[in-house]
Amino acid sequence: MEEKNVFVRYLNWPVLAVALFAYTTAQAQQVPVPPKMVPEMTEFWEPEPRVVTPGMGMAPPSDALILFDGKSLSQWKAKGGGGDAGWQVKDGSFTVGKGDITTKQEFGDFQLHIEWSAPDKVEGTSQGRGNSGIFLQDRYEVQVLDSYNNRTYSNGQAGSIYKQHRPLVNAMRKPTEWNIYDIIYTAPRFKDDGTLFTPARVTVLHNGVLVQNNVEIKGPTEYIGLPEYKAHGKAPISLQDHGNPVAYRNIWIREL
Amino acid sequence: MEEKNVFVRYLNWPVLAVALFAYTTAQAQQVPVPPKMVPEMTEFWEPEPRVVTPGMGMAPPSDALILFDGKSLSQWKAKGGGGDAGWQVKDGSFTVGKGDITTKQEFGDFQLHIEWSAPDKVEGTSQGRGNSGIFLQDRYEVQVLDSYNNRTYSNGQAGSIYKQHRPLVNAMRKPTEWNIYDIIYTAPRFKDDGTLFTPARVTVLHNGVLVQNNVEIKGPTEYIGLPEYKAHGKAPISLQDHGNPVAYRNIWIREL
Amino acid sequence: MEEKNVFVRYLNWPVLAVALFAYTTAQAQQVPVPPKMVPEMTEFWEPEPRVVTPGMGMAPPSDALILFDGKSLSQWKAKGGGGDAGWQVKDGSFTVGKGDITTKQEFGDFQLHIEWSAPDKVEGTSQGRGNSGIFLQDRYEVQVLDSYNNRTYSNGQAGSIYKQHRPLVNAMRKPTEWNIYDIIYTAPRFKDDGTLFTPARVTVLHNGVLVQNNVEIKGPTEYIGLPEYKAHGKAPISLQDHGNPVAYRNIWIREL
Amino acid sequence: MEEKNVFVRYLNWPVLAVALFAYTTAQAQQVPVPPKMVPEMTEFWEPEPRVVTPGMGMAPPSDALILFDGKSLSQWKAKGGGGDAGWQVKDGSFTVGKGDITTKQEFGDFQLHIEWSAPDKVEGTSQGRGNSGIFLQDRYEVQVLDSYNNRTYSNGQAGSIYKQHRPLVNAMRKPTEWNIYDIIYTAPRFKDDGTLFTPARVTVLHNGVLVQNNVEIKGPTEYIGLPEYKAHGKAPISLQDHGNPVAYRNIWIREL
Repeated sequence: MEEKNVFVRYLNWPVLAVALFAYTTAQAQQVPVPPKMVPEMTEFWEPEPRVVTPGMGMAPPSDALILFDGKSLSQWKAKGGGGDAGWQVKDGSFTVGKGDITTKQEFGDFQLHIEWSAPDKVEGTSQGRGNSGIFLQDRYEVQVLDSYNNRTYSNGQAGSIYKQHRPLVNAMRKPTEWNIYDIIYTAPRFKDDGTLFTPARVTVLHNGVLVQNNVEIKGPTEYIGLPEYKAHGKAPISLQDHGNPVAYRNIWIREL
Repeated sequence: MEEKNVFVRYLNWPVLAVALFAYTTAQAQQVPVPPKMVPEMTEFWEPEPRVVTPGMGMAPPSDALILFDGKSLSQWKAKGGGGDAGWQVKDGSFTVGKGDITTKQEFGDFQLHIEWSAPDKVEGTSQGRGNSGIFLQDRYEVQVLDSYNNRTYSNGQAGSIYKQHRPLVNAMRKPTEWNIYDIIYTAPRFKDDGTLFTPARVTVLHNGVLVQNNVEIKGPTEYIGLPEYKAHGKAPISLQDHGNPVAYRNIWIREL
Repeated sequence: MEEKNVFVRYLNWPVLAVALFAYTTAQAQQVPVPPKMVPEMTEFWEPEPRVVTPGMGMAPPSDALILFDGKSLSQWKAKGGGGDAGWQVKDGSFTVGKGDITTKQEFGDFQLHIEWSAPDKVEGTSQGRGNSGIFLQDRYEVQVLDSYNNRTYSNGQAGSIYKQHRPLVNAMRKPTEWNIYDIIYTAPRFKDDGTLFTPARVTVLHNGVLVQNNVEIKGPTEYIGLPEYKAHGKAPISLQDHGNPVAYRNIWIREL
Repeated sequence: MEEKNVFVRYLNWPVLAVALFAYTTAQAQQVPVPPKMVPEMTEFWEPEPRVVTPGMGMAPPSDALILFDGKSLSQWKAKGGGGDAGWQVKDGSFTVGKGDITTKQEFGDFQLHIEWSAPDKVEGTSQGRGNSGIFLQDRYEVQVLDSYNNRTYSNGQAGSIYKQHRPLVNAMRKPTEWNIYDIIYTAPRFKDDGTLFTPARVTVLHNGVLVQNNVEIKGPTEYIGLPEYKAHGKAPISLQDHGNPVAYRNIWIREL
């Protein structure tokens, strides 16, 4: 492609001079060398990024949706029936109760901050100790487990994408201490015929330590067998009742 | 997710029954259906992720290399000549002095934590206010600038990949407050003939807020003109002297 | 690879023996080893790929939409006004005439086969010789140019993504001979807010030789300045009138 | 980053005029608008793509390494022992004989052209009919099978990445006719510690019809169980003896 009357449109001497310079250089070097740009040509003022006031420490930034503020589960409901989320809130956190819970709102791509604590009383082994889970878009599980001195299969320990990707390292804190997950999630995209276009991707920081580096999620989490994508749109965040009294607090999300 | 009685579950008749069921279904449907797997087939115990003790708050995890501990610039040297890094350390931080400085060690892929503060005394405008920069592998700049109520070109404000990617949002803290960058960096790879195989990629959290989401770096940072990759191996982290007394503290890095 | 006696193999003792072996090994090694799968667990019969009858030589496969069959430009219209495509058809090909033309139908992802010939009479130099272009989704140009013994800028010669990616090699045939482009195109995807999610990608074979290997398109083709994506949906294929009598023939497309 | 004495270096009136224009525009619009570039700024003459003379029809381009020219298996050896490739050459093609064969040379990324024909005499069903395979880098199998009216599991038919990706469509020709694979292969890359950096990717055209579109290979082809990458460097192309007299001809490769 080459636009023919291009010089006419913005014709002025400076431009011609630059072009002449380029031409002269080219003659000397046999092939033309692109004329030098000026700095402003790679400086783009619009759009201006909107201002977000970050929170201090782990506090939510100003544009976050608070999914749990220490007081109420009003952003959550019971999974399945859709009744109230029946888990117990106490002292600024809540503890896994009967049945999974799920957010009332649905999300696509997002940044999620969530804190959790394995039960103070250490019981069980392997998958039986402090087990819960955070299901991104209700399908893709970031494992929650007491992985402090508790060996299990690597792709099932805390920080794993359950049965898909083991964490890069085990950054687990002791029971009685709070763990933090900072999760950057890109939803999968599907073609019009329902087949996968791009898989979901996720980055996870566990207590500030990178444990998943933009890994491709292989499909919905399966306890048995191989995952397989099925087309879906926005979907909620769900928390799993695995029978262990794992506690959660300070949950916020920013849609991307 | 669940896991109990590991080997008991598939060392018995139920498994055979499942297989039989699959076989029967297949006959009915004309095409075979894959037999059901058992949970253990997707449970991988090796390798075991190594244990890292996370720091509390922004403190370094146990496997981090401390690039600045509040006391000395012993991990740094002057850029160019290679003499000592002459910037002044005081009260747990150091301030930009004469000439760029660079780490003595070189890095490939990494997670980098670095805190910085724009000058308390607000002077200058646009690129003239609180300007410095963090050069990943000595080439790819994450911009440092006082972007608190200080408009400049979007791809040149704090949190930008300078002149390449504007930040998703402006998460800048006020002068006198400390800013935090958490950076996840994947180095570019080159083919044997020196051409680019995969570009560098970077994720940046600014004060805990996502500002760069695994973006592709287009090449070495250029003030004038278009970036172009040139093959290189491991390389240091450099900090820029742009004539403004920006302060830095609490710098650590984990190679990935 | 092998597959015989499908269900016999795992409906019997050997499978149990394998499982037992895994269990024993696990005991010895302290950590469990995943039990061995059977071959059928990774054999998926559904969905069955539909049958396409390939053409002989460069002839269209049975599922292709024929965009030019040697006889009529009925699949094309004039760009802009939307009147008939006024280019002249003769002897099984057509020649660039007045004004660009564009397909009546719009496309997303596709495989495109198109043949073209630079003018028999060699005139002009650089961009002035045998210049035309194929605009994928009406925006992204695969350059058409007589690049046989005709030096121009590398990212503007035949097989280039115009002003974005030079071809890997120059696989141009002589004037009087026909050139073939086989193009595999993945459309860009956009987020709901109109920003880019994934860039367009393209693979181009020029006379059977790879010249573009799944490169990322940077945005709509620009003669002046840097490309920038704007959200769009399905769009037609357009052919450029650059004032040179380039000929085209045998054009077919398969939506992906 | 901002270079301070930048204007001094190439100071001349034209540039200043351009900058002034930008500044003036900016004043009017409140924020600066990047000055317009000139076309030559995005025209890059170096490096110049080298010239390759394409073959007519399926004939090799001038820069291809001919792996089989119709006469001799001199580019191949027996797999394992390393003796001569014992398969029989006749009438310009060769037929699968005893034991796999492998190229003497090793390859990284490449474009491979290979033609094959299922046995004229149709025998067996499913995986038992006309079965062979092309192992890219001796590990990753593009399936060869008589898939003309021969149902098998989708991820095991002709054009599949065996047990990993079914072909997009079934573009198989009848026995007695020759099939063509055009394969574009990008080798996996590994980190220094042997873990995977980027998986292998492959595009396959079967008789000119796209059947694999730059898919990620999951690891070495496994008949039983899940694939898992192990670090490796350049490696040969291998052809599989699966007991069926599949014929091959016209094989050439271009390293990328």
